[in-house]
Amino acid sequence: MNPDYTDSVHHDGSSRYVRPATGTEMKLGDEVSIQLRTAVDAPIERILLRTCPDGEQFFTEMQIESTSTSPVCIWWQARLHLSMPVMSYRFLIFAKDGVWWYNGSGVHRHVPTDAEDFRLLAEYDAPAWVHESVFYQIFPDRFANGDPSSSVQTGEFKYQGQFSRSRDWGEKQSTWPEAMVEFYGGDLPGVEQRLDYMADLGINAIYLNPIFTAYSNHRYDVVDYFSVDPHLGGDAALISLRHATSRRRMRFIIDIVPNHCGVEHPWFKSALENPASPTADFFTFHQHPHDYESWLGVRSLPKLNYRSASLRETIYAGPKAVFRHWLKTPFAADGWRVDVANMLARHGRDQLETEVWAGIRQAVKEVNPSAYLLGENFFDSSPQLQGDQLDASMNYFGFTNPVKFWLHGFEVNQHGEPRTVRSAVPWSAQALVNSWQASRAAIPWVIARQQFNLLGSHDLPRILDTLDHDQALNRLAVALLLTYVGVPCIYYGDEIGMRGKDALEARNCMIWKSDQWDTDLRSFYQTLVRLRRTSPALIDGGFQVLVAEENILAYLRDADDDQLIVIGNRGPAEYSPAGLPVRQGAVPDGIVFRELLTGRTCTVHDGKLPIPPLPAGVQIWRAIP
Amino acid sequence: MNPDYTDSVHHDGSSRYVRPATGTEMKLGDEVSIQLRTAVDAPIERILLRTCPDGEQFFTEMQIESTSTSPVCIWWQARLHLSMPVMSYRFLIFAKDGVWWYNGSGVHRHVPTDAEDFRLLAEYDAPAWVHESVFYQIFPDRFANGDPSSSVQTGEFKYQGQFSRSRDWGEKQSTWPEAMVEFYGGDLPGVEQRLDYMADLGINAIYLNPIFTAYSNHRYDVVDYFSVDPHLGGDAALISLRHATSRRRMRFIIDIVPNHCGVEHPWFKSALENPASPTADFFTFHQHPHDYESWLGVRSLPKLNYRSASLRETIYAGPKAVFRHWLKTPFAADGWRVDVANMLARHGRDQLETEVWAGIRQAVKEVNPSAYLLGENFFDSSPQLQGDQLDASMNYFGFTNPVKFWLHGFEVNQHGEPRTVRSAVPWSAQALVNSWQASRAAIPWVIARQQFNLLGSHDLPRILDTLDHDQALNRLAVALLLTYVGVPCIYYGDEIGMRGKDALEARNCMIWKSDQWDTDLRSFYQTLVRLRRTSPALIDGGFQVLVAEENILAYLRDADDDQLIVIGNRGPAEYSPAGLPVRQGAVPDGIVFRELLTGRTCTVHDGKLPIPPLPAGVQIWRAIP
Repeated sequence: MNPDYTDSVHHDGSSRYVRPATGTEMKLGDEVSIQLRTAVDAPIERILLRTCPDGEQFFTEMQIESTSTSPVCIWWQARLHLSMPVMSYRFLIFAKDGVWWYNGSGVHRHVPTDAEDFRLLAEYDAPAWVHESVFYQIFPDRFANGDPSSSVQTGEFKYQGQFSRSRDWGEKQSTWPEAMVEFYGGDLPGVEQRLDYMADLGINAIYLNPIFTAYSNHRYDVVDYFSVDPHLGGDAALISLRHATSRRRMRFIIDIVPNHCGVEHPWFKSALENPASPTADFFTFHQHPHDYESWLGVRSLPKLNYRSASLRETIYAGPKAVFRHWLKTPFAADGWRVDVANMLARHGRDQLETEVWAGIRQAVKEVNPSAYLLGENFFDSSPQLQGDQLDASMNYFGFTNPVKFWLHGFEVNQHGEPRTVRSAVPWSAQALVNSWQASRAAIPWVIARQQFNLLGSHDLPRILDTLDHDQALNRLAVALLLTYVGVPCIYYGDEIGMRGKDALEARNCMIWKSDQWDTDLRSFYQTLVRLRRTSPALIDGGFQVLVAEENILAYLRDADDDQLIVIGNRGPAEYSPAGLPVRQGAVPDGIVFRELLTGRTCTVHDGKLPIPPLPAGVQIWRAIP
Repeated sequence: MNPDYTDSVHHDGSSRYVRPATGTEMKLGDEVSIQLRTAVDAPIERILLRTCPDGEQFFTEMQIESTSTSPVCIWWQARLHLSMPVMSYRFLIFAKDGVWWYNGSGVHRHVPTDAEDFRLLAEYDAPAWVHESVFYQIFPDRFANGDPSSSVQTGEFKYQGQFSRSRDWGEKQSTWPEAMVEFYGGDLPGVEQRLDYMADLGINAIYLNPIFTAYSNHRYDVVDYFSVDPHLGGDAALISLRHATSRRRMRFIIDIVPNHCGVEHPWFKSALENPASPTADFFTFHQHPHDYESWLGVRSLPKLNYRSASLRETIYAGPKAVFRHWLKTPFAADGWRVDVANMLARHGRDQLETEVWAGIRQAVKEVNPSAYLLGENFFDSSPQLQGDQLDASMNYFGFTNPVKFWLHGFEVNQHGEPRTVRSAVPWSAQALVNSWQASRAAIPWVIARQQFNLLGSHDLPRILDTLDHDQALNRLAVALLLTYVGVPCIYYGDEIGMRGKDALEARNCMIWKSDQWDTDLRSFYQTLVRLRRTSPALIDGGFQVLVAEENILAYLRDADDDQLIVIGNRGPAEYSPAGLPVRQGAVPDGIVFRELLTGRTCTVHDGKLPIPPLPAGVQIWRAIP
């Protein structure tokens, strides 16, 4: 165990600890001011900032900021010269009890590798609008039917042996595979008509599941990357949505699957028919025509082959490539969510992902430097998150899973046997905190604050079901979603308490009859969304853990003039400490905090916040200016 | 703290735990058998092998090996399919007290990133001869004068304002800068004449400091990459050395500095004179001719510019490039030691090291797939050690520094102010162990076992001086050098107890008068070198820490039929445990060990090795078959 005083050593990449010369934009050659905070009574004698410009270790003596007047902490400061596109740094601390290294994963006696150094990016095109966004994910066929005339008709087509079927809103879905071609008529006009609903919830950005022409209702089996499915309203509906969202200052991103296409895509049909077809090398045939690479062996989803220069040209490199097309007017999508980004351009012997992602990034940023390039990845995506590939990933790995493992238990699933593995022993909050920290430490802060955090999606059971419909734990999970580092996304219907015990049920139709809503839950969401969009501590503040015990988690989000403390209790026992320790977060005595949900106030005394007892659930305290 | 039983969980990349289909060579498509060892009484219910082929997580159930008859451990086994050039993997352990992840950095409750996964390389050209080598580093001007007629004469040339000066063997050197052009006449014929001395010590590989034509005695200021300095005997002497070493089955590697050249190099002189010179773009002029990039701002060492295609062609890419030239007959060097590999091709905005190193590797391996490509790097070099760049680095980061920090205290130096920072508080053995582990965990085992471990070099004070001439600590350090994972290198003269309080004195002339030798120390070296070259446990065995306390370090090296236990005591107090715990290393009761230096024997009882008291120093126990 490290001595207590080391808990007071804090730095992260937020604006309180890194001060660029001009705004948040960093250019090569800039000097940046680096701040580090330690407790006033920590036995620290000296701190050096360690960088490695062009590969050679370099130390800069840090100075104590003489202007700081805090009674509880000391601010150390040094200048850092941004001489490379990626500048990593850490700290060497000389204390009375020896030397410590401090990096993104904490304090260490041993010499760490550079892998968890803090990192700054120069010349990085950030999607700055994302930082103040709260997203809402919509599965188009199931959100709202705005134009019944465009809906898929029963028997309109046959796909994979199944006839399409038109269903009434809210009817129970069939099971797989019939469910795949059941359509409820949701469309883009429906989304547009419900923008007021979203605005009322506080949402200012939308993530739309696939809208390109395809046969199944999820549309990941695309047959045309260049058209919006007519059943969703076609290109015109997307243009209309663009105008409507822009008027409300709302953003939207769309979903693409460049890893594979549908078996009915003309590229694949042509390749099947003729090995000399211009699109034959878009695919990998081990033996033509029967044996070809596909997504996890699912033959209806042939995998695209990025060894092909011509495919690259079509998907991202060429002037009219897919990745560029939809970011341009009149569609002007604000970014991309890329399906199975973890697999893209990876072909056994040929692991081409680094160059392909660099090419995709270049294409996207050439059209719009502030477009958001978001990848789906259920696993560790940190190699893609160093500034030269993705702007963010769907943060299952660094947020969703650890939260669920703590609140419900450890469980992993795979496409294969054993399909699911579970542990009956619950995770501790320390394991949650360590998982969060490991994933943050592996990427630059500027990326971490853009990570796409979520509790639900079209691929998961509803969070309420995962938590066995426990209202208190659900609220705790939602509070984590909206106060943790990153950009929150709410899966449609979670805010009204929709249920769904698996990924299929999670795609049930949105409930529009408000008498079926959990309006208390919806108010809770509204309150937190408003907080997330207006609190400087949440938009660009630091993150520091105050308590991580078996069932208890508490953390501080701090900006210069805004401080928030989030306390979660997994239960079942009530949490009633003599006071929550806050001194390590440099919160001085006498500061008054107000609890967001109850309005109760509380004053810091003797380094502690004397909170009232907390049953399973959450308290959110904000300092009163 | 983790429960004790987790200490018994062990896997590494050695041949006891990874069994390729055929020998050590792994090809794409091969299946490999992965073994994991746990204590027989550990409350473990299930273990899954986790891989991530083409980016998608995949679990394989591990089986208990029914053929294992160990009374103390269980062997778990699974097959791993090598579908990618770099296959990483880790383990998911289900125990009664919950879930653990086990990777290169140990057991974790939280979900780790993939960065410290174990890693296998397919289609990797290993320099297999290195695995059974013990290196000897020679600074040519100071080792032995074999041909006095070729020696530099006083006043023969003037360099950097200093006239060259011929000195008598063993005379005290001047200080900088005069020392730079003082020559003692050591040469390649001298090296050749002393091969018997090296063979007697047990050495079978030599690392020669620079031998290309240059003005200073260290010759890092090269003026011709294509000639051996005539003062060292010229090309003919190298050819002769090649023949002589080959006859003795000895290898040698030579030293190159592709990062910069000497200010007198014709390439630079031409570039200075004429901005349109064909070699002008070999350098980076901020303003011609005065302001140019150089090694850490030292103007006499202009930095080579790897933006230049023509430079790349000359250094490595072209058919007659430097990197290829010296690996071909008649010179046929066995590999390269590359100076400041950490800086190469790094130019601020343009960080070109990845592509340049890939190019150098390709050039080297095209000439000789088993050439050893070794880079100098005082810092974390793990990004260069993933199989596509270096075969190894000089392991200051992962071996030398941690050992010194433990045995003497923490100290770092830099080119800049503050020049040296020290801590008076000693490091614990745990910090040493964690440093070792962090550096191993960041690279594939096949690379870790090739890492170039050293206690001394031309850039450091002699190890004996660093350890304040403490004989016991010196022997402990040497024992670590020769029993730790990696390839040991002995700096000339360390074996006879030569002294040198700084890098300059470390370049003093080799002492050939044997009455001035510490012959006991030399015998100690001989014994350990012999052990290193013949023990399967040291050549290709596993590594597992048994004890890491403040002053005490003990570890196991294990092969199927060879087990070694190394116990080090930093002192000052004697170490006299009730017995050294060995059960976690799966060493059963009744096994008899013999101590290498004293011949004493000792039998494992009740999971412990009842060792005699150990004053500061080292014991090395080897199981008697």
